[in-house]
Amino acid sequence: MARPVTLFTGQWADLPLEDLAARAGGWGFDGLELACWGDHFEVDKALADDGYVRSRHEILERNHLNVWAIGGHLVGQAVCDRIDERHRAILPPEVYGDGEPEGVRQRAAERMKDTARAAATLGVQQVNGFTGSPIWHLLYSFPPNDFAEIERAYQEFAERWGPIIDVFDQEGVKFGLEVHPTEIAYDFVTTRKALDAIGSREGFGINLDPSHFAHQSLDTAQFALEFADRIYHVHVKDSLKRLDGRRSILGSHLSFGEEARGWDFVSPGHGDVDFEALFRALNRIGYQGPLSIEWEDSGMDRDWGAPDALAFVRRTDFAPSQIAFDAAMQRA
Amino acid sequence: MARPVTLFTGQWADLPLEDLAARAGGWGFDGLELACWGDHFEVDKALADDGYVRSRHEILERNHLNVWAIGGHLVGQAVCDRIDERHRAILPPEVYGDGEPEGVRQRAAERMKDTARAAATLGVQQVNGFTGSPIWHLLYSFPPNDFAEIERAYQEFAERWGPIIDVFDQEGVKFGLEVHPTEIAYDFVTTRKALDAIGSREGFGINLDPSHFAHQSLDTAQFALEFADRIYHVHVKDSLKRLDGRRSILGSHLSFGEEARGWDFVSPGHGDVDFEALFRALNRIGYQGPLSIEWEDSGMDRDWGAPDALAFVRRTDFAPSQIAFDAAMQRA
Amino acid sequence: MARPVTLFTGQWADLPLEDLAARAGGWGFDGLELACWGDHFEVDKALADDGYVRSRHEILERNHLNVWAIGGHLVGQAVCDRIDERHRAILPPEVYGDGEPEGVRQRAAERMKDTARAAATLGVQQVNGFTGSPIWHLLYSFPPNDFAEIERAYQEFAERWGPIIDVFDQEGVKFGLEVHPTEIAYDFVTTRKALDAIGSREGFGINLDPSHFAHQSLDTAQFALEFADRIYHVHVKDSLKRLDGRRSILGSHLSFGEEARGWDFVSPGHGDVDFEALFRALNRIGYQGPLSIEWEDSGMDRDWGAPDALAFVRRTDFAPSQIAFDAAMQRA
Amino acid sequence: MARPVTLFTGQWADLPLEDLAARAGGWGFDGLELACWGDHFEVDKALADDGYVRSRHEILERNHLNVWAIGGHLVGQAVCDRIDERHRAILPPEVYGDGEPEGVRQRAAERMKDTARAAATLGVQQVNGFTGSPIWHLLYSFPPNDFAEIERAYQEFAERWGPIIDVFDQEGVKFGLEVHPTEIAYDFVTTRKALDAIGSREGFGINLDPSHFAHQSLDTAQFALEFADRIYHVHVKDSLKRLDGRRSILGSHLSFGEEARGWDFVSPGHGDVDFEALFRALNRIGYQGPLSIEWEDSGMDRDWGAPDALAFVRRTDFAPSQIAFDAAMQRA
Amino acid sequence: MARPVTLFTGQWADLPLEDLAARAGGWGFDGLELACWGDHFEVDKALADDGYVRSRHEILERNHLNVWAIGGHLVGQAVCDRIDERHRAILPPEVYGDGEPEGVRQRAAERMKDTARAAATLGVQQVNGFTGSPIWHLLYSFPPNDFAEIERAYQEFAERWGPIIDVFDQEGVKFGLEVHPTEIAYDFVTTRKALDAIGSREGFGINLDPSHFAHQSLDTAQFALEFADRIYHVHVKDSLKRLDGRRSILGSHLSFGEEARGWDFVSPGHGDVDFEALFRALNRIGYQGPLSIEWEDSGMDRDWGAPDALAFVRRTDFAPSQIAFDAAMQRA
Amino acid sequence: MARPVTLFTGQWADLPLEDLAARAGGWGFDGLELACWGDHFEVDKALADDGYVRSRHEILERNHLNVWAIGGHLVGQAVCDRIDERHRAILPPEVYGDGEPEGVRQRAAERMKDTARAAATLGVQQVNGFTGSPIWHLLYSFPPNDFAEIERAYQEFAERWGPIIDVFDQEGVKFGLEVHPTEIAYDFVTTRKALDAIGSREGFGINLDPSHFAHQSLDTAQFALEFADRIYHVHVKDSLKRLDGRRSILGSHLSFGEEARGWDFVSPGHGDVDFEALFRALNRIGYQGPLSIEWEDSGMDRDWGAPDALAFVRRTDFAPSQIAFDAAMQRA
Repeated sequence: MARPVTLFTGQWADLPLEDLAARAGGWGFDGLELACWGDHFEVDKALADDGYVRSRHEILERNHLNVWAIGGHLVGQAVCDRIDERHRAILPPEVYGDGEPEGVRQRAAERMKDTARAAATLGVQQVNGFTGSPIWHLLYSFPPNDFAEIERAYQEFAERWGPIIDVFDQEGVKFGLEVHPTEIAYDFVTTRKALDAIGSREGFGINLDPSHFAHQSLDTAQFALEFADRIYHVHVKDSLKRLDGRRSILGSHLSFGEEARGWDFVSPGHGDVDFEALFRALNRIGYQGPLSIEWEDSGMDRDWGAPDALAFVRRTDFAPSQIAFDAAMQRA
Repeated sequence: MARPVTLFTGQWADLPLEDLAARAGGWGFDGLELACWGDHFEVDKALADDGYVRSRHEILERNHLNVWAIGGHLVGQAVCDRIDERHRAILPPEVYGDGEPEGVRQRAAERMKDTARAAATLGVQQVNGFTGSPIWHLLYSFPPNDFAEIERAYQEFAERWGPIIDVFDQEGVKFGLEVHPTEIAYDFVTTRKALDAIGSREGFGINLDPSHFAHQSLDTAQFALEFADRIYHVHVKDSLKRLDGRRSILGSHLSFGEEARGWDFVSPGHGDVDFEALFRALNRIGYQGPLSIEWEDSGMDRDWGAPDALAFVRRTDFAPSQIAFDAAMQRA
Repeated sequence: MARPVTLFTGQWADLPLEDLAARAGGWGFDGLELACWGDHFEVDKALADDGYVRSRHEILERNHLNVWAIGGHLVGQAVCDRIDERHRAILPPEVYGDGEPEGVRQRAAERMKDTARAAATLGVQQVNGFTGSPIWHLLYSFPPNDFAEIERAYQEFAERWGPIIDVFDQEGVKFGLEVHPTEIAYDFVTTRKALDAIGSREGFGINLDPSHFAHQSLDTAQFALEFADRIYHVHVKDSLKRLDGRRSILGSHLSFGEEARGWDFVSPGHGDVDFEALFRALNRIGYQGPLSIEWEDSGMDRDWGAPDALAFVRRTDFAPSQIAFDAAMQRA
Repeated sequence: MARPVTLFTGQWADLPLEDLAARAGGWGFDGLELACWGDHFEVDKALADDGYVRSRHEILERNHLNVWAIGGHLVGQAVCDRIDERHRAILPPEVYGDGEPEGVRQRAAERMKDTARAAATLGVQQVNGFTGSPIWHLLYSFPPNDFAEIERAYQEFAERWGPIIDVFDQEGVKFGLEVHPTEIAYDFVTTRKALDAIGSREGFGINLDPSHFAHQSLDTAQFALEFADRIYHVHVKDSLKRLDGRRSILGSHLSFGEEARGWDFVSPGHGDVDFEALFRALNRIGYQGPLSIEWEDSGMDRDWGAPDALAFVRRTDFAPSQIAFDAAMQRA
Repeated sequence: MARPVTLFTGQWADLPLEDLAARAGGWGFDGLELACWGDHFEVDKALADDGYVRSRHEILERNHLNVWAIGGHLVGQAVCDRIDERHRAILPPEVYGDGEPEGVRQRAAERMKDTARAAATLGVQQVNGFTGSPIWHLLYSFPPNDFAEIERAYQEFAERWGPIIDVFDQEGVKFGLEVHPTEIAYDFVTTRKALDAIGSREGFGINLDPSHFAHQSLDTAQFALEFADRIYHVHVKDSLKRLDGRRSILGSHLSFGEEARGWDFVSPGHGDVDFEALFRALNRIGYQGPLSIEWEDSGMDRDWGAPDALAFVRRTDFAPSQIAFDAAMQRA
Repeated sequence: MARPVTLFTGQWADLPLEDLAARAGGWGFDGLELACWGDHFEVDKALADDGYVRSRHEILERNHLNVWAIGGHLVGQAVCDRIDERHRAILPPEVYGDGEPEGVRQRAAERMKDTARAAATLGVQQVNGFTGSPIWHLLYSFPPNDFAEIERAYQEFAERWGPIIDVFDQEGVKFGLEVHPTEIAYDFVTTRKALDAIGSREGFGINLDPSHFAHQSLDTAQFALEFADRIYHVHVKDSLKRLDGRRSILGSHLSFGEEARGWDFVSPGHGDVDFEALFRALNRIGYQGPLSIEWEDSGMDRDWGAPDALAFVRRTDFAPSQIAFDAAMQRA
């Protein structure tokens, strides 16, 4: 049995869920990973109103869609971040409030606890999201970093997220950090440090997204093997390097989609990610959850791209074997 | 005639100039690029005390060394930066003061004007340095950048540095920005934008350092050709990528020299930089200034490395030709 | 909306148009780019006989095919070439005449003017073709070239083609030079020089064919961006390098299809051309014209290959997007 | 006409032929290459009982399958090998007998003669298989080899296989050695030596399997050209290198399918083999026989993989052309 | 302080030690790693005759040479090997005896104990060598290996070498296995298994030789980091891959130096080994022992090559640094 | 013994031999390969005047220089070429005459016979040079070549050069074609055809120059092995590809030394040629003649470059070995 394929709804938040679910069902997806923004899955309504959750299920069922996970990226980002104007655009007004940083961070933390509760109400056991980071601006150590500050940041992360994960544990829900630049963990080294800081507790795992690794020259399949027991969810997203000696791998402070960038997100199967190697690694570690397409390609029509991506995953993902082959070659 | 080879003293600021000059002279360098920190070249003393400048010259002459440029990197960094605790460690106390950001920035700007004046007093026409950047923390656009803010940052840079460059012009001295991550310009795109913002005025050019380009996958020789009229000074520094699928090109918030980093600085000739291609490009654009070795290699003894680097440059740099060869093959 | 896909009929001139159109229609092409040889589109008949043009349209319509461009490669080649025996085989007898070079060139130029007139009669605004070159034999400068002669050749090209393009302008038709070895322009440098020589006039543009770039190690997508306003038509043709240290990139004076060649033409999608990068570049510059498959693969049955190529283009070409993605991730 | 595609049954010997033929027919294969083990094609029964051969044909016909070749790999292996316990598992008990090496080798040789006779009875002219090797254990020359012993081994091979091939010649059947590590020939050099040793007689040729070449860094298409007149049969099997500096190309004494191996077999089209180059080479040398999929991928469900492999071959194999293309571009 | 550079005498055993020491001293080596064959260091004489050891020291001292290690490769090879005729050529007659395998293995084991005793007499604490392997012939698993047999082989190795290492421990001498094809350990996986099998005891470590890793595509620097506490000695030897699609990485059963091999040993610095990366790794793990040149290049005159190799090591090996560089950039 | 290193004087013809010999002797060259232009070695004077040859020897001896070969490239070029204005610049006036092509070719052929005679007078047995080609302008087959014309060109070459080589044979001198674009042979395929056409006679061999192979992606070492018995002389010259997607490998009709070219000649050791592989191949085929540096680098001062090139060859060329190494490891 191949794994179910879902569509993460985060990049489609301009569409009402009704509309998006009709499209996704028509394309043949197995389910949706609902974003906690737009009208896709509103945490406050889910906790306040029984009918709201029922309405979500009805929309999904009408389109023959399932749901295995929800995405709480935007609010999660604010939990550990240095808050600035950009957060106003991605947070619910009642979370952003007056924008005073520590207040924002605390309200975001509370909202993440509510997100776990809402997930349980919806009947899913997986919330994916971001953590934010107090030290992203220290990425390049000049002026020279005080590396004790880096260490303290991992402690701060653990202190802010520990109580959140306590609620996740109570609700029987797990959190999957999407390892990603601007988060507390974005590669092998920082993932190891983040897991160590939070005590490698079961409630805190990884939403593995290879598109954030390829431009860093990281091997996603190897990552899956190395953090096997914490791979709780998988995004299918791709990115492409276009390095010609004039384009920087760092992105040039250009928006995604600009010609002069050194790398960009592209529709799955159109970029650098070796998905077959990743899927083989997922087979090896026994991952049975959804492959959730996070579709983003600023150079492609999304209604062309989403079914193209689905077809790509269907033909690339396959079930593992139990047979040892040369053994089969032996005489019975 | 090959170009003179100097040693940038910034990484040797733990040594008194007396000591360092004796070593550099002994190794056979043609001169020093004096850092404006340690006791190498103190801007305030140079302006206050005629004897100070004379003493610098005496130390140099005693060791058969020249000086073509000075380095004002640390103070320059503060002019446009978001100021934090790290700046305390790199700024003179009277510039850092109480650490209130705008005050620090303004005092740093004044000190850069003084640096131009001090350079003139010393008799050099070139000050290299950093500019800082108000937007380095926005490198990766998540939460999504307001790109109007990026544009405003280039304007802010121009507004802060314009008056400084006015003083440089008055003093007959030029500024060379070392294009570098954490500065307003760190690659082709951002250099073009910075030069445009400041009006491509002659007083503001580039200190070209290939070690900051190699790990970004940028071609330094091509950069030299593209910004030919603004290449005012050249650093000889190298870096090495060590990407094996587990090490990130972004550096993992690890200090330079840590095993698990994806790239690091290494002694010139031991890394990824194609210096011959760079020197050929410098010949093509007619650059006649010094090749200034900025020596940094956390895995090598610096007293072994500095003369090794000097020998490397001596055997790699060569004078251009005027002869068209197949023409020489023709019968006279 | 994806771009229409046509079949260039030049390599099928052994078949009557009736036969070829039936095949192409059956395979599902959107149209044909008619070659001005064989019986596909005969310039003299088109100008002499109203019924002829009508007959072409009838054949096309019967097979649900359109026409957006015609190909005048063979006659165009003679306009600037050093004429020899080889031209006899590719020119109409009345153009080749007695083979006296200057006479051939002038008759070819006149025929190109007629080609513009015939195109207008047919109702198309695009003629693709070759220009020939007076200096192809000087490709490798030994005996050493007099480079003034190279410069004069660009002038000669401009003088010969200027009057032809005047007629194109009058007829509201554009010429698209297929940048190609043996033509006045075959790479970035020579295309720039040719466009400059002819005054960058609007009537003279480019039929972009990536198969001629791949073996030169040229990046076709970059070419499309650099000459964006002159990309008037696009060929979909592919080539493959097979360099193993014994095969020369120069071709060894062997015919296409010979085993020992260093490169060869292959069916689109089977070679070195990065078509997705090219199509993305075409999206970026707003090219809306046909993708015209010029099918040539000496190792593949063409009736297998042509529909294979069509399927390849259909699944590789896609419409661009207007959505900025992280923006969509923001809260409405 | 494209070549027929068959499935080699060796890796499916745990299934009765009835079952396997039903699957293969359902997937659309053109035929089976029957392994001489399991119940697929039993040499002794074929010679003893007329009805047995008929029963094989009936099973095949019922499933619209043909047979062009049979596989006698396991018994062939014993003809020249240093016999040990492993051979007990791959040989029929009456061939292995008491395991005394020379006795095993001689009984295996006799059984290979019977295999030729049984093939003739079945109506096929091709038997594929292994030869074994007396010197595989001397692969790495330490302790230093006596290279005269290597030469003697090729003579021993010729002496043991000569009489077997005599019977093949009498029966009008050819033998195809699958060039493969552990056999007398596994690369260009050793194939040349083996063919020379046996006198380049027509009865002894090659079953070309690219999966054994890719991990050795050998070019299978070049091999096909170089040994063109001895390519009697072709296996479609793939392998993939996964070298990251920690995995050895030599295999680490790990079983196929282990994560830490440096290379492994994978389903055709999922590995390093350039099948299009191989098929073009087969076209060039005029090979018209079957493409026989030897399916082995320890990470993939074989019922998913076999039809996937068939589809891969169908879309990759194509018929050659007779047309010289630029000729077609000339005026008729 | 850079590390001492020695010459391993194994490949010069045709020369008397007197002669070789004079050459090596003249070239400027710091010492010799004496092979236990030829007349370089004879174990039986060293134990029988006090004057013998003194004579070795006198020869060395006369040529200003030191000794830090001896090489017992040839006898060690026989301890675990499947004995055949080749061992007769590399063993002392009294060890080979009648060639009965188990007897040979036991006498070889006793001689290795004596080698530890002789080393102690000579005053060195390091013996390098081979272990042999009972399973090298099972490298490629066909006929399919019984992998339980592989596991048993590691046990056998531990049982045979455990008592030998007991004597090493008593004598205060360490054994360094040269990880190498045909030994129980030849890559990362097998080294880990061998160390585990023998209980990771301190007396049994590694003589690291990168030439055996390069052709396997292994990263020697990574190996040094991974087995840091067992790197007891280092050989400087190089190898070069020459893969062109016709040459196999497996060696084609050709002797070293044959043109058609896919790889060969070459003089240090002339091959694929990245010695700077290795030396940096050795600095990182704190290795202070000799760099011992094992010179072997069948295409180069050894009297030209040995001093060339010495010069290469002298200019490539350097001492590490204690300075953190950006720290040095900070104001004191 | 390493091979002698000479300097080919062709690119220094602007200097009188007196001057050049003094420089070359001072740099430490072993000899000169005299060009038959400038005043270096004038064929007509050598035949007319005994004193002239003596004067050349005196100049050489005074500077401790030898001569093993002379270079007759320019006149040789005219023997088979399509003559045009460019030949006027490279030929003696009495050979060019009125420029009527066939007359030029015949006078050039006679002069080549004289060159053999003059070489004999000088006491050298090797003349290097070019042949010209009647078909260089047909390099890219468009308009499509009549390939019978290509075949006829090899015959024409044989007919023109056969009588010249007759004289070479009489004089005991050999001709070495410098395989090179614009000559009858420029790669593997065309060299084989040229040698076959002229009957593989001993008087006609090859002056191997790797700089003409590297930009064609040809392996010079392999060429040396394949044409071993015809390698009569070797040039040491280098070239460098600079392909970035915008520069064509074909050269863009730009003069050597122009920035935008895709490749260029560079000083030996500064380019793409693998000289060590070449020198190893020369050792293998037993070539004992000079390594003649043809120095050409439009970006380097030639007085810096020539001794740099000499030092490069001295440290890269080495004598072969007779020792089989693992044999040396065996006990005597």
